[in-house]
Amino acid sequence: MSFSPLLQQLIQALRCLPGVGPKSAQRMALHLLERDRQAALSLAQSLQEACERVGQCQSCRTLSEEPICALCADEQRDHSLLCVLESPVDMLAVEQTGGYQGVYFVLGGHLSPIDGIGPEDLGIRQLLQRLQQGEIRELILATNPTVEGEATAHYILEQIEDPHLKVSRIAHGVPVGGELEFVDGGTLAHALAGRRSLRKEIS
Amino acid sequence: MSFSPLLQQLIQALRCLPGVGPKSAQRMALHLLERDRQAALSLAQSLQEACERVGQCQSCRTLSEEPICALCADEQRDHSLLCVLESPVDMLAVEQTGGYQGVYFVLGGHLSPIDGIGPEDLGIRQLLQRLQQGEIRELILATNPTVEGEATAHYILEQIEDPHLKVSRIAHGVPVGGELEFVDGGTLAHALAGRRSLRKEIS
Ligand SMILES: [Zn+2]
Ligand SMILES: [Zn+2]
Repeated sequence: MSFSPLLQQLIQALRCLPGVGPKSAQRMALHLLERDRQAALSLAQSLQEACERVGQCQSCRTLSEEPICALCADEQRDHSLLCVLESPVDMLAVEQTGGYQGVYFVLGGHLSPIDGIGPEDLGIRQLLQRLQQGEIRELILATNPTVEGEATAHYILEQIEDPHLKVSRIAHGVPVGGELEFVDGGTLAHALAGRRSLRKEIS
Repeated sequence: MSFSPLLQQLIQALRCLPGVGPKSAQRMALHLLERDRQAALSLAQSLQEACERVGQCQSCRTLSEEPICALCADEQRDHSLLCVLESPVDMLAVEQTGGYQGVYFVLGGHLSPIDGIGPEDLGIRQLLQRLQQGEIRELILATNPTVEGEATAHYILEQIEDPHLKVSRIAHGVPVGGELEFVDGGTLAHALAGRRSLRKEIS
């Protein structure tokens, strides 16, 4: 015995969600059908609408149903400061710090030859064209501090033709409030190498 | 800054899934839109189809798009043995033991006056009518071993008019392979009270 065909199909379909295994998918399907069909129908509707209407912002490539997203359209932001990120979640993370007033460019991943993801897939040509327009004063490469993220940042750096453009990389180091004991070796090595003097240097 | 309206709406809609908080909903929405819109559309389709077509088996009340589910329609099963359960997942759990050949009746919950769930909501009248038809030889009350499950089993027991019908309750005890140390006190008390002799009794 097993569940009815439509129920099995729903359980299978729910497994497309990241972090959802067979047990959770089962629990989700039963919960929706037994307790909350209204919510299930709303979810179906939202999924379809988002898939059909959400595209990329033409300027920053973040997910947006408008041709230009709200952030890119905001004239209060500093459009001469451009932060390059791997994904829209990273953008949310930077925004939530409240300390960044510039704009963004979302690659939508990192270079990964093994998965067939090259510069074209990440919009790097579009990024370089934007740099050539001369509005950008500083480019902050904020791809993830992983091997792939570093390689992607390095690749972009090498493609930049303007020798006067200020290009920076987010700092590596120990997390604020973290304990050295729990910081991995690579991070700690970066934190030591990137140490800053706490006393004025005597020149 | 936050996500675009449609993306926010999708994140909110995903929170109807049990165990999905704001962070997971965000991760799920971005994953689907950035990586797997085909799967998202299939999920939307499955949700809608299941909500529209999956009802209850007229015989056992489990979730089924057919009027009579495959298990109830199976003539190989012993239709004189009826196991009463709280939910379709419990039915799957019992089936997976491979040791039960009877049929089922799914209450779809337990009595809970505080939530306004009474005997009518659980199909208890339908269950009693079935018992009156005389086909059932033994009724196994397999509601959960919780306060509510016990109360529901007790309520059903009290409603049964036929004094000759065999009615049983699943046994409480220590889980097979479990260690006494980790078994809760209530279970252990039940296991002791329900102890069985390992030697033939001398009468
Ligand atoms: Zn934008
Ligand atoms: Zn059935």
